[in-house]
Parts: sequence; structure tokens; C-alpha cells
Amino acid sequence: METTEGGCSGHDHAHGYIHRKDDYLKRLRRIEGQARGLQRMVEDEKYCIDILTQVSAMTKALQAVSLGLLEEHLSHCVVDAARAGGREAEEKVREATDAIARLVRS
Amino acid sequence: METTEGGCSGHDHAHGYIHRKDDYLKRLRRIEGQARGLQRMVEDEKYCIDILTQVSAMTKALQAVSLGLLEEHLSHCVVDAARAGGREAEEKVREATDAIARLVRS
Amino acid sequence: METTEGGCSGHDHAHGYIHRKDDYLKRLRRIEGQARGLQRMVEDEKYCIDILTQVSAMTKALQAVSLGLLEEHLSHCVVDAARAGGREAEEKVREATDAIARLVRS
Amino acid sequence: METTEGGCSGHDHAHGYIHRKDDYLKRLRRIEGQARGLQRMVEDEKYCIDILTQVSAMTKALQAVSLGLLEEHLSHCVVDAARAGGREAEEKVREATDAIARLVRS
Repeated sequence: METTEGGCSGHDHAHGYIHRKDDYLKRLRRIEGQARGLQRMVEDEKYCIDILTQVSAMTKALQAVSLGLLEEHLSHCVVDAARAGGREAEEKVREATDAIARLVRS
Repeated sequence: METTEGGCSGHDHAHGYIHRKDDYLKRLRRIEGQARGLQRMVEDEKYCIDILTQVSAMTKALQAVSLGLLEEHLSHCVVDAARAGGREAEEKVREATDAIARLVRS
Repeated sequence: METTEGGCSGHDHAHGYIHRKDDYLKRLRRIEGQARGLQRMVEDEKYCIDILTQVSAMTKALQAVSLGLLEEHLSHCVVDAARAGGREAEEKVREATDAIARLVRS
Repeated sequence: METTEGGCSGHDHAHGYIHRKDDYLKRLRRIEGQARGLQRMVEDEKYCIDILTQVSAMTKALQAVSLGLLEEHLSHCVVDAARAGGREAEEKVREATDAIARLVRS
């Protein structure tokens, strides 16, 4: 679908995080592994503080993914929309700000 | 190993989150599924903002797990150590505070 | 009022953060100063990124105050309630967990 | 100084948060008042959980200021730099992402 290609909805060219897709997939697979590791820890009734430490590490890894995606979104989708002119840049900024707010509060 | 049984290191009885083990395992399996869903989104080059929304949802789910574990830790391990008397309560509180700090900063 | 003395509602003895009251007052005065500094920066139309850096510093200082208060609350109010026996420890833990949840989400 | 006017360093026109300067000053004065209120609470040895609640409210107010400033920064400084062309947009995005990272971690 044209609107989602390359991560920038509304643009007909592929760009955004696509260049680093493999890097993101690798990071997300590691995060998936952390979720499985946590299940083993609960299964084995490990000490809660040790489980909490692992949850914090996993949250940090997720945050790093978010910040990376956000940077790519700003440098591609927002900058491109600004260059294209018109109202789209405004919408993109609003959308990015909403995502940042969710990130900060989560 | 005695020291990790039931989640309270240093106690020889089983308690803590163990009662709700199945609940935690279910939640962590769902979080693992979210990590897989994110990989599909990146694979399909979905719009970054939509991916960010999913990452925030996953982070919130992880935070809920942390807060649940922390509550059980305080109400079992810390309270029991306090009742047992001695220096252990102090150590438990320090350890819990460190975990909370990591949680707040992650 | 008896219930608020020393920071532990429901206890008739003075303890908790009271020992470090001066330290907390000093830190809060510094935070108040940071709030005034931010007003000057906005007044002088400083670069937004520099203002954001100051806001982050101020948020970190506030978090340090929270974590300090929380540690004192756990090591005094929660531990004392646990030692006193009865249902109060449970309530104190629930209350502390709610405060931690607000802290994590703010 | 030209470089800081209106909040967008490197631009010679006034824009950015300047339009809402009074709004930001009002919010920051309220935050300053919250810092003073917290000092009174500590002075009066209020219950720690009540103090923590106020600290969370203050942190939320600060976060709202950050998110507002960030949105203005993106919609003015970053969008303008993108329209002006050249490498400046890239630097602005990097700088904004660093500020977001500090915000998320604080």
C-alpha cells in the first residue's frame, strides 16, 4: 500500500527506517527473547528484585527502539513533508508530538 | 535453591508472587506476542507512528508487570523481613528502593 | 496533628524524613530557583532546546526528592506498620505502591 | 542576540514559543508556587505520601511544559530548517531527538 511504504504515510517513495530494518528486527528479536527469559524466571520463581532488573533492561531496550524510530521519522517524514510545503508538515509534527507524549508518559 | 524460593531471597517459605504466577506468565506471553507483532510491523514497513503506538502499549504492559511484582515484594518480602526483626528489613528496603529508581528512570 | 507527625500517619512518634528535613528543604529551594531560572530563559527567549535541557534537569531533581522520600517512607512507616502487626502494613504497602505507580507514570 | 531570538537559534526572525510566552510564564510561575508549597509541606512534616502526590503533580506540569516547547520547536525550528534546505535540518532533528531522549529518561 502506497501510504505506508517506507514508513512515511502519504509519500510514494520508500524511505524512513527501511534502511535499518534489519537492525530493528534484530533488536526486536532480542526483546522477544527477553520476554521469554522473564517467563522462565517467573516459572523458576526467581527473586522478584532480579526479575524487576530484567524488566527494566527490557523497557530500556524498547525505549531505545522508540527513540531510534522517532529520529528516523523526524528526519525523513517530517523533514520531507516540510520540504513538500502545505499543511502536511503541521499534521506530521502534531502526530509526532502525540507519539512523543505517549512515549514520555509510558 | 532455598534462597530464591517464592521470590523472597533469604526466606525458606514459598510466598510472594507465586500465588499469581499464572497471571504473570499469561501477561508475559502476551508481551512476547507484542514483540513478535512489532517485528511483523517492521517487516511490512508499517507507518512509524503506528509502530511507536504499539511500543508504548508494550512498555505500559511491562510497567504494569513491574508494579505488580513490586507490590508483592513489598507486601511479602519487606513486611516479613520487618516482622522478623534485625537488619534484614533495612537491606530489603534499600534493594526495593534501588529497583524503584531503575523503574522510574527506565 | 498526631496523624501527620514525623511523616507517618497513624503513628504517634516522630520519625521518617524529619531527620533530613533540612536536606529536603535545601533541595526544594534549589528546585524553586530552577523554576525561576526557567522563567528568565523564557522571558529572554532563549533557545528552546536549552530550555528543555533545564526542564529535564529540574525533573531529575524532583525525581531524586521523590525517591528519597519513598525510601524513608518504606524504611520507617511501612517497616513500623509491619512490626506493629495487624492490617495496617497492608494498607501502607498499597498506598506506597500507588505512589510508586504515580511516580513511574509521571 | 540574533541566534537565540524567538527560540530558533540560527534564524534571524522571531518565532517559536514566543507567541505563547505569557502562557509559558504563567505555567512556570505556577510550578514555582508548587515548589514553595512542597517546602511548606516538608516544614509542617506532612505525610510523605501526600508530599509524593504533590511532587508527581509538579512533575506532570513540567512534562506538559516540555511537550509544548518540543511541539513548537518541531513545528517552527525543524520545519523552517527543512524548508531552508541544506544540512541544518539534520542537525535540528538530531538535537531534537537528543532532547526527547533526555525527556523520556528523566
